Amino acid sequence: MAKQFKAHFKNVDNTGFGPNSSVEGGRLTNKDGSYNLRKSGLRFYERISIYHTLLRMSRTRFFLFIFLAYSSINIFFACIYLAVGVDKLQGSEQAHTLVDKYLTAFFFSSQTLTTVGYGHISPLGFWTNAIASIESLMGIMIFALVTGMFYARFSRPRAYIRFSENLLVSPYKGGKALMFRIATYKNNHLTDAEAQVTIAIHEHTAGGNVTTRFFQLPLEFSRINSLALSWTIVHPLDEHSPISHFTEREFKELKIELMVTIKAFDDHFSNTVMQRTSYTADELVYGAKFLPMFERSVDGYQTNLQLNKVNEHEIVQLENVVNVDNVLDVIDAEEN
Amino acid sequence: MAKQFKAHFKNVDNTGFGPNSSVEGGRLTNKDGSYNLRKSGLRFYERISIYHTLLRMSRTRFFLFIFLAYSSINIFFACIYLAVGVDKLQGSEQAHTLVDKYLTAFFFSSQTLTTVGYGHISPLGFWTNAIASIESLMGIMIFALVTGMFYARFSRPRAYIRFSENLLVSPYKGGKALMFRIATYKNNHLTDAEAQVTIAIHEHTAGGNVTTRFFQLPLEFSRINSLALSWTIVHPLDEHSPISHFTEREFKELKIELMVTIKAFDDHFSNTVMQRTSYTADELVYGAKFLPMFERSVDGYQTNLQLNKVNEHEIVQLENVVNVDNVLDVIDAEEN
Amino acid sequence: MAKQFKAHFKNVDNTGFGPNSSVEGGRLTNKDGSYNLRKSGLRFYERISIYHTLLRMSRTRFFLFIFLAYSSINIFFACIYLAVGVDKLQGSEQAHTLVDKYLTAFFFSSQTLTTVGYGHISPLGFWTNAIASIESLMGIMIFALVTGMFYARFSRPRAYIRFSENLLVSPYKGGKALMFRIATYKNNHLTDAEAQVTIAIHEHTAGGNVTTRFFQLPLEFSRINSLALSWTIVHPLDEHSPISHFTEREFKELKIELMVTIKAFDDHFSNTVMQRTSYTADELVYGAKFLPMFERSVDGYQTNLQLNKVNEHEIVQLENVVNVDNVLDVIDAEEN
Amino acid sequence: MAKQFKAHFKNVDNTGFGPNSSVEGGRLTNKDGSYNLRKSGLRFYERISIYHTLLRMSRTRFFLFIFLAYSSINIFFACIYLAVGVDKLQGSEQAHTLVDKYLTAFFFSSQTLTTVGYGHISPLGFWTNAIASIESLMGIMIFALVTGMFYARFSRPRAYIRFSENLLVSPYKGGKALMFRIATYKNNHLTDAEAQVTIAIHEHTAGGNVTTRFFQLPLEFSRINSLALSWTIVHPLDEHSPISHFTEREFKELKIELMVTIKAFDDHFSNTVMQRTSYTADELVYGAKFLPMFERSVDGYQTNLQLNKVNEHEIVQLENVVNVDNVLDVIDAEEN
Repeated sequence: MAKQFKAHFKNVDNTGFGPNSSVEGGRLTNKDGSYNLRKSGLRFYERISIYHTLLRMSRTRFFLFIFLAYSSINIFFACIYLAVGVDKLQGSEQAHTLVDKYLTAFFFSSQTLTTVGYGHISPLGFWTNAIASIESLMGIMIFALVTGMFYARFSRPRAYIRFSENLLVSPYKGGKALMFRIATYKNNHLTDAEAQVTIAIHEHTAGGNVTTRFFQLPLEFSRINSLALSWTIVHPLDEHSPISHFTEREFKELKIELMVTIKAFDDHFSNTVMQRTSYTADELVYGAKFLPMFERSVDGYQTNLQLNKVNEHEIVQLENVVNVDNVLDVIDAEEN
Repeated sequence: MAKQFKAHFKNVDNTGFGPNSSVEGGRLTNKDGSYNLRKSGLRFYERISIYHTLLRMSRTRFFLFIFLAYSSINIFFACIYLAVGVDKLQGSEQAHTLVDKYLTAFFFSSQTLTTVGYGHISPLGFWTNAIASIESLMGIMIFALVTGMFYARFSRPRAYIRFSENLLVSPYKGGKALMFRIATYKNNHLTDAEAQVTIAIHEHTAGGNVTTRFFQLPLEFSRINSLALSWTIVHPLDEHSPISHFTEREFKELKIELMVTIKAFDDHFSNTVMQRTSYTADELVYGAKFLPMFERSVDGYQTNLQLNKVNEHEIVQLENVVNVDNVLDVIDAEEN
Repeated sequence: MAKQFKAHFKNVDNTGFGPNSSVEGGRLTNKDGSYNLRKSGLRFYERISIYHTLLRMSRTRFFLFIFLAYSSINIFFACIYLAVGVDKLQGSEQAHTLVDKYLTAFFFSSQTLTTVGYGHISPLGFWTNAIASIESLMGIMIFALVTGMFYARFSRPRAYIRFSENLLVSPYKGGKALMFRIATYKNNHLTDAEAQVTIAIHEHTAGGNVTTRFFQLPLEFSRINSLALSWTIVHPLDEHSPISHFTEREFKELKIELMVTIKAFDDHFSNTVMQRTSYTADELVYGAKFLPMFERSVDGYQTNLQLNKVNEHEIVQLENVVNVDNVLDVIDAEEN
Repeated sequence: MAKQFKAHFKNVDNTGFGPNSSVEGGRLTNKDGSYNLRKSGLRFYERISIYHTLLRMSRTRFFLFIFLAYSSINIFFACIYLAVGVDKLQGSEQAHTLVDKYLTAFFFSSQTLTTVGYGHISPLGFWTNAIASIESLMGIMIFALVTGMFYARFSRPRAYIRFSENLLVSPYKGGKALMFRIATYKNNHLTDAEAQVTIAIHEHTAGGNVTTRFFQLPLEFSRINSLALSWTIVHPLDEHSPISHFTEREFKELKIELMVTIKAFDDHFSNTVMQRTSYTADELVYGAKFLPMFERSVDGYQTNLQLNKVNEHEIVQLENVVNVDNVLDVIDAEEN
């Protein structure tokens, strides 16, 4: 099947993936842009960047993590205060049962860790004082970490790009083109947006193995000045395309994967942001075109971008014309 | 009207705005550089980046927001303490009326949230202690957020560029040129400043619709080494200009919009900063030239940049000469 | 005098300085790289970026600023507590004189602002409680600012480059060259260092005015991979130099100013850093060469960079040979 | 020996290292990428960036540093409180021995510094109050520093690249090539990775001195799109290589040093990261090839990258084919 590729389309060897890295039914890049990859051979804590992990955690899990850490530290210190003796906690005289004593120690610990220190319970004697002194230092250091983590989480430059779920093969200038659509969904501003699309084609070789070939796909526009509205990224299936001769069946059978990288400058973060995704054959719709996703607002003074329509498309007939000379400008209405 | 454009001036298709995105009376880019755009189709919290919103809020509104959040949280916790029982707040014995009890609970809450914890009021019993423990954790997390937000706000790289309010058509080397002027107004230093100017021309088509065409405007200098003094950005209306044949009336009738992007390196932030603005036909003055905005200081040892004069211009006669061969260097005196 | 410049050396017009911005005896760029510039026409607070100001303040002044701000706020709040009534501060019963009362209020204020809140003095009644509640919020916000400011100050990417105080005209490959030397003086690592040198020549015109002309000076190397040791930046005074015909007297009389920008990548900050300086005719030594500033360490396993020698040079005879064909490689030993 | 280099391989002069900076037995760049360099001539605190030092300290040392700083400050303030008089610390009445008094002062100090302020010990009189007021301000400032430092440490963009310990000379396309291998070992994502390899060759000259010559080594790929799996960086020893004629003995005898810089874009930090290392002749294995370090996971849906195998290689026979073009141009050392 490899013979089908015209000689002048060179396999890209520097994608960072190997020719035998692909797997039956798996994908190289996950939908969220992370690599479908497992790392082994190093101990867990050597392989894991705690910072990256806490940064990517969902908000709910992050708060839960903080709450659990807070409780655990208090439970730990409460045990120590109990071991030293609750009688060394001034103000705990009315605590008689073990539960009461433990709770007193626990709440004294929490008052020390957060540095609220009401003082109705206060440390007495060297050891309790020393432990409380260390705990309050720990408290400040932990909350220094939390402060940094919070800042890192919300200040992390992100592209906030929504991709169309489907990849379409649409009519384009009398021929066909591979298309997907993106739009920013938050109140952020991206400029100098750049798209890079690499196709991975997993081929069964004679021996039953799977080899992967990579091609960079040329785009109609690979760069736009501003990502104000939506952007339909178009790979024309013409003579410059290594996959122009693919039929619908071949698109499905060859187990293609489109790896997409969008890079842009966010002028509020004053930083370059990047978002990745991938499309597999399952997400390809052969013969469809995107419907417009913006319109004039009712008062006529603004443009209204309808973010829920980023994937809206209708089925259209694809004529099997490949000669690109026949410019019909069919696509002009859909393009932004 | 589109026929007026010479064949070799290519419409720029990758501005991020569509040909039918413009609207009667509206503009594509607001004066402050944001897009004149509404996003819909996603729930509010999905569309909004809280971080971006708090970052762009005015200083007054930001402080008000913090004060209101602080009060609300205290009101909320005061209610909880009241529900559990004010008698569980040691030191509140002299509070007899409901108002007094509520105030005691409110101030205890504020002392807990800020971790000041004087201790003349202190929690008693499991529930009050547990709630106070959670509140003080919340306090620390909220102020971690505030710390991060403060840092993000004042450390956000910004260009601090002041644009002239008007766009002038001035005499330039025996012909004419489109000009506007910028200057940095804070004690920041910009180097490697780069300007990019795109014109959007909204044309009425036969059917009564409006189509927008975009052209990149070539500049006399599109890059300067240092933005120490003012910079007059000049688009010569010569044979390289797609709008050189425009008369005063056409400038007004075609509903043009100049979209301007300035990018520079701030050597204190060590970061690239960007500022945008736009000019519409209303802001165009046909036949005027900028007056100098800097002079030697009285002691003669410094240059004095008068920031209030960034828009100062005087009306001049524009001769309708378009032939650029007639180089008279008229502009040299005004240029910086 | 302008006639002396060969026709093919084009005046650079995009330096950001104007032809008439220079002043008798002044300089365009100060020694520390800031512009010798005064801005007016806007109110002080509009012209000043507080952030930039606090960022550039010396360490001593910054700590003094914090200490004074802390004292002022406490003095202010002490007055308020006094006005409401010191009797509303529980624990201040032994304060009878006004001074004692004021001090009690002052220390209560400081305990509230820092959220230390011992509690031996505690607020009583609505107003004192409310004010203390606001003060502790203020305290947290102020220290959020201080935290951010501290971080901004010490994390600010800086180049830490030491420039030689003098600019030398040295023998170079049988001719002459303009040279200065730089070295990083902290334990930071700079890579991909790039130098840009612009000369400003202030000329007296017929009318007694001063006009400034700018030329970019071509360098022997304008970029090096790594700024590990010292770097001697060399502008050969050959046929590519617009100032090759200058005699010693002309260098002095023309009131030249060399504006230098060094840009590099700091791989610990992972950021581009920049440092600027300028040299005037006063700092030029005609006929001198730099002495080596590094040597093998005593144990022979390391290179020892002597930072105090960055400016060390010896006087040498300059032969007035301008013909560059006569390549003698004289300079090779001194160059690094 | 210098005669061996063909004329068309130009010595790179802009590496930042000098021809006489190398030392007997030493190396220019350490294994961790830092320069093997000592700086002198400035006082210690002028040469040291505290920020860079604290940033690069190991985690254990950093925590130890904070703990020691905390203890020292408390010891210092305890002495002051003792000097003013422990009787001025309300609540210390039961402390009679000097040790007890000192401990009371010490713990009061720690409660003030961390702003926990229980209040069972509280300041009395002007001086004790004033000192406590200053100490709590100091506490807040110190912990502002710690917060910033923590954030700087864990948010510092790092490449997390593991280099193979050995540099191999492997068979490559019928000839030979110099190879080393890298892989990211944390859960970070690098894209647009770029490698730059410079070789330093230390040669003994006639006088017994050592001169160093630098050459940029051309690579098979100097840039890859994504560093998902491992990347073997290959310098083909062909006609474009300045060291293609080296035999095994020459590789060892010439005391070569390969200086490697990897630059990439981390899309979570949204920042460029850089990592450096160097290889010396001791680490070179002549005649070996790397073994694969990734395989399909057991379930077949993922790729498994085995990080412990980054250096795994097997010894192979190198055929001594150098016949890329058998032109042994002998040229004199006219360079340098």
